Amino acid sequence: MNYFLGIDMGGSGIKMAITDEKAQILDKTSIEMNLKADPKTILSQTLSEASKLKFYDKVKAAGFGSAGDIDYKKGVLRYAYNLPQWKNVPVKRLLQKMSGREVFMDNDANIAALGAFWIDLKGKCENLICITLGTGIGGGIIANKKIYRGSSGSAGEIGHISIKFDGTPCNCGNIGCAEAYLGGKNFQNYCRDYLKDKKDALVKSMTDGKISNLTIEILYEAALKKDKEALFLWRYYGEKLGVLIASVLNILNPDCIVFCGGLSKAHNFFEKSMKEEIAKRAFKTPAKICRIIFSKYSNVLGSVGAAMLPNHQKQKKQRRCRQDMR
Amino acid sequence: MNYFLGIDMGGSGIKMAITDEKAQILDKTSIEMNLKADPKTILSQTLSEASKLKFYDKVKAAGFGSAGDIDYKKGVLRYAYNLPQWKNVPVKRLLQKMSGREVFMDNDANIAALGAFWIDLKGKCENLICITLGTGIGGGIIANKKIYRGSSGSAGEIGHISIKFDGTPCNCGNIGCAEAYLGGKNFQNYCRDYLKDKKDALVKSMTDGKISNLTIEILYEAALKKDKEALFLWRYYGEKLGVLIASVLNILNPDCIVFCGGLSKAHNFFEKSMKEEIAKRAFKTPAKICRIIFSKYSNVLGSVGAAMLPNHQKQKKQRRCRQDMR
Repeated sequence: MNYFLGIDMGGSGIKMAITDEKAQILDKTSIEMNLKADPKTILSQTLSEASKLKFYDKVKAAGFGSAGDIDYKKGVLRYAYNLPQWKNVPVKRLLQKMSGREVFMDNDANIAALGAFWIDLKGKCENLICITLGTGIGGGIIANKKIYRGSSGSAGEIGHISIKFDGTPCNCGNIGCAEAYLGGKNFQNYCRDYLKDKKDALVKSMTDGKISNLTIEILYEAALKKDKEALFLWRYYGEKLGVLIASVLNILNPDCIVFCGGLSKAHNFFEKSMKEEIAKRAFKTPAKICRIIFSKYSNVLGSVGAAMLPNHQKQKKQRRCRQDMR
Repeated sequence: MNYFLGIDMGGSGIKMAITDEKAQILDKTSIEMNLKADPKTILSQTLSEASKLKFYDKVKAAGFGSAGDIDYKKGVLRYAYNLPQWKNVPVKRLLQKMSGREVFMDNDANIAALGAFWIDLKGKCENLICITLGTGIGGGIIANKKIYRGSSGSAGEIGHISIKFDGTPCNCGNIGCAEAYLGGKNFQNYCRDYLKDKKDALVKSMTDGKISNLTIEILYEAALKKDKEALFLWRYYGEKLGVLIASVLNILNPDCIVFCGGLSKAHNFFEKSMKEEIAKRAFKTPAKICRIIFSKYSNVLGSVGAAMLPNHQKQKKQRRCRQDMR
């Protein structure tokens, strides 16, 4: 049996997991992220923590993923919006030297997609789209069982499909991006604005009288308590998400869409309106054949996906070749 | 040298070409489509015409493409909106029996993409999107040098990305699809409506006083004559197309987008506004690396792409395998 280490670095913490080649988690841990520390120190701390994990000695290769603009071939983290110290850091080279193992690298959206492919689908899926509903809306594409990266490694930005060309401005500079409606911060702002004049909403009583205290978490709690306004807002969220997913089904015709990320926790409150919108908008066959899954494994998709990277990059060649020889 | 026959069947005619394995056209012809005749008769007439082409005797295999819902694996044309006689026609089986050659099949958008890949890009492209600007807006995706069909064969419907969720209703049932703005018929209707109150427009003098006579062709002619209103309308067309392409660049990060189809002829009048819109909206790197081409070969992309199908389906396996063995 071969073992792999996966590292998933984010703005708030670094998650690690050791898996076997079928993506079974054998051990896992995490450390907090120090945004001020220099990258080498962080990578060294990470490996020091990882080395305490069970089976670390047997780890054959490692995968590393993070947000940002990543040159996956060279293994360089060029730039990440929320990681100011990390500019043109040769993560692959550094980690290889420190760990003595071969290291593979990709961005957070792609490792989450690979994690979903292995954990949620057990590898039984041809074309998968993994959509992270978080502060932003991330997307990773698996096409023909392979990560689809596009020509300069930035494919999958599903959150930056404009769903309304003259709609809400998006941080990216475009107008009407899905993220401008569905990204956690943007949706939170929309809700604050919407609730301003709503006097009796239970959800308002949960913000200590200040609508600027409203968070997605509170909106979720209020929906659990069946607050009408909160339920209305989650339905609105589902409608806009349905618009996006209908387009994704029409272009990419996947057999599976997996949602993960903080906001997917609230899916009980937006799944119905999302599916109604998809039924109204998408082509019938792609809508029918596509399974929609809300992952229960959001927390580990990234680290497990990272752990599956070495396998993914190496084995796909052998596998294809064997298939073709038959 | 191996030779291939490509057949591209549309609502108005059937185009045929014989090519070598590098997509060089050696001979070509076409016949009119008889929408009332039964499919077997049409296929027989097609082959009879094809057999007069130079090098037909040396043809090793054939490819067939048409609009509609196609089961490319079984080689069945299940249904096509504009071909009422063609329901569940086993085209592959019929053509194989009639011609004595192996036949491969795909839809018009995918064979156009394959044609563009070979003719416009000479096979030197990893990820290509081919967009047909015709009555409707078609799309074909080449990912990692392979046709990307999705999980039920309907991927690539780029015209049915909603660019405005509360916009113009689309024939497909969705709202605000790119096709509702950019499809030839829809754009024509938009122009007729827009021009209704414009008294001095030259383009109106070209419609014999009846705005219902306005066609895309007339709008193009008027732009050639520098009519301000016609130029304005083509700029509008480019803006909306730019919205769509920005989203496509963000999701798919292709190295090339090829436009074909009747309306692409007018690109001199919409290319500038399209590119300005892309520059405003798309992520910088994918926008920068992507070449945008207006194909000069719209007429033969389908038949040549069809001729390349046998090669595509067979050789990719061998090629991959050889690469992987290195």
